[in-house]
Amino acid sequence: MEFGDTRLTLLVRPNDLDPLGHVNNAVAVEYLEAGRWHWLGQHGLVPGDRVVSVVARCELDYRAEIGRGEVEVHTDLTSPDQYDEDGLTYRARFRQRIAQGAVTAVDALVTVAFLDSHQRCLVTLQDYVEASTPGKG
Amino acid sequence: MEFGDTRLTLLVRPNDLDPLGHVNNAVAVEYLEAGRWHWLGQHGLVPGDRVVSVVARCELDYRAEIGRGEVEVHTDLTSPDQYDEDGLTYRARFRQRIAQGAVTAVDALVTVAFLDSHQRCLVTLQDYVEASTPGKG
Amino acid sequence: MEFGDTRLTLLVRPNDLDPLGHVNNAVAVEYLEAGRWHWLGQHGLVPGDRVVSVVARCELDYRAEIGRGEVEVHTDLTSPDQYDEDGLTYRARFRQRIAQGAVTAVDALVTVAFLDSHQRCLVTLQDYVEASTPGKG
Amino acid sequence: MEFGDTRLTLLVRPNDLDPLGHVNNAVAVEYLEAGRWHWLGQHGLVPGDRVVSVVARCELDYRAEIGRGEVEVHTDLTSPDQYDEDGLTYRARFRQRIAQGAVTAVDALVTVAFLDSHQRCLVTLQDYVEASTPGKG
Repeated sequence: MEFGDTRLTLLVRPNDLDPLGHVNNAVAVEYLEAGRWHWLGQHGLVPGDRVVSVVARCELDYRAEIGRGEVEVHTDLTSPDQYDEDGLTYRARFRQRIAQGAVTAVDALVTVAFLDSHQRCLVTLQDYVEASTPGKG
Repeated sequence: MEFGDTRLTLLVRPNDLDPLGHVNNAVAVEYLEAGRWHWLGQHGLVPGDRVVSVVARCELDYRAEIGRGEVEVHTDLTSPDQYDEDGLTYRARFRQRIAQGAVTAVDALVTVAFLDSHQRCLVTLQDYVEASTPGKG
Repeated sequence: MEFGDTRLTLLVRPNDLDPLGHVNNAVAVEYLEAGRWHWLGQHGLVPGDRVVSVVARCELDYRAEIGRGEVEVHTDLTSPDQYDEDGLTYRARFRQRIAQGAVTAVDALVTVAFLDSHQRCLVTLQDYVEASTPGKG
Repeated sequence: MEFGDTRLTLLVRPNDLDPLGHVNNAVAVEYLEAGRWHWLGQHGLVPGDRVVSVVARCELDYRAEIGRGEVEVHTDLTSPDQYDEDGLTYRARFRQRIAQGAVTAVDALVTVAFLDSHQRCLVTLQDYVEASTPGKG
């Protein structure tokens, strides 16, 4: 599986700002999630009800303040590095970046796992892609 | 059906504040929804998946700023005033109030409708109460 | 003063959705605020720190569900109808609409007041426009 | 400086839930911030306008879903480990945990820096505590 990186432009909403006039640190995590949704859509994946992705770990470095205006969210799937003996991977890791103009405001590494919500068990990235490909899942 | 009014104490979260240091006007609507959930719970109603309530209309008067600290959300079901010929009501109206200390910050009138999410049709308050009463719905 | 109406396209974010998969009713109020910010910007107004606008009253009719995708927020200043004897107006009223595709999801009437945040007193729309016009305020 | 750990009970709000009926991963970051505010208050610190704390890094492990009800946010300042030669520290690290009932849902390590918002420069934890102590700052 080969997936290119994506860029999403988002408008900062008034309610995103905190008393200092900057985007709140929790809101940046919302931007990242919007970026991953966009990534899915750009790759033709449509999340279904049965196999879902859940965030397992999130590392965020806040490098600069984000003010009013627009931000750009970059999303890139890093090579899955945890294959089991059958070549399957149970986690995917995204490298993401929120930029405002030329400034990188947030660097993030987000690990997602895949869940079969009916059977309540972890499944593989391959299962997720299969279930999220229209006409297949 | 007789339902008493309820009071819920909520903590203002950092992210609720806008650049002026006051609770954002949209967040007040979240407080009201938390108040209605609390009202349901206090009356033994547990929202299910099939019959759900949806907000149809919301009137809000913002009377004072809300700052850091706690708020109290008052919720009262006003007498349903739109019965059809069979004595059924398709909408419920809540009078709600957000207070901080002795000050009323927001007065609201919220109209909710009831929806059978499987059949995609409007149902009555009576249907909703029936479906949301554990052991019945 | 003559101001035309504006249209803003916004992306629905994952966190805007509630357990039913629709945009939460409080989030719609955030969309409206983003629409009013956009309206200000389109008319060359830059909110400053001293004279600020605050929401005084909000009437919302929720007509249809909003799902994933984009919404369009229409914002129009209705003619101010409350002039005092000097021809000044202390409140402005916006008619706003949130549409998704061809469907109007929310109709809203939002009344804003203007506040001198230093002197802690109400001021007029004319004062607000003056203070928010770059090079004047 | 010695600071004990604190526990804050928060109500999950309706709008915190995502389409799966669980608290959204970004909202957990809001809970953590509420926990740190509470920690400040419990230690008699009142954030002012001049010296502010900003989140520099956040590591989150999502271990279990959070559903409706209440959560408890544990907040503990870990020993500052980066003193310069004068014994000062420019960053503070909080170990935080969000629990629902007996289940730990989120483990987090949050690094904050301190900023003099007037002079736009980093200051020390000692400066921050001084500025945030009523009667001193």
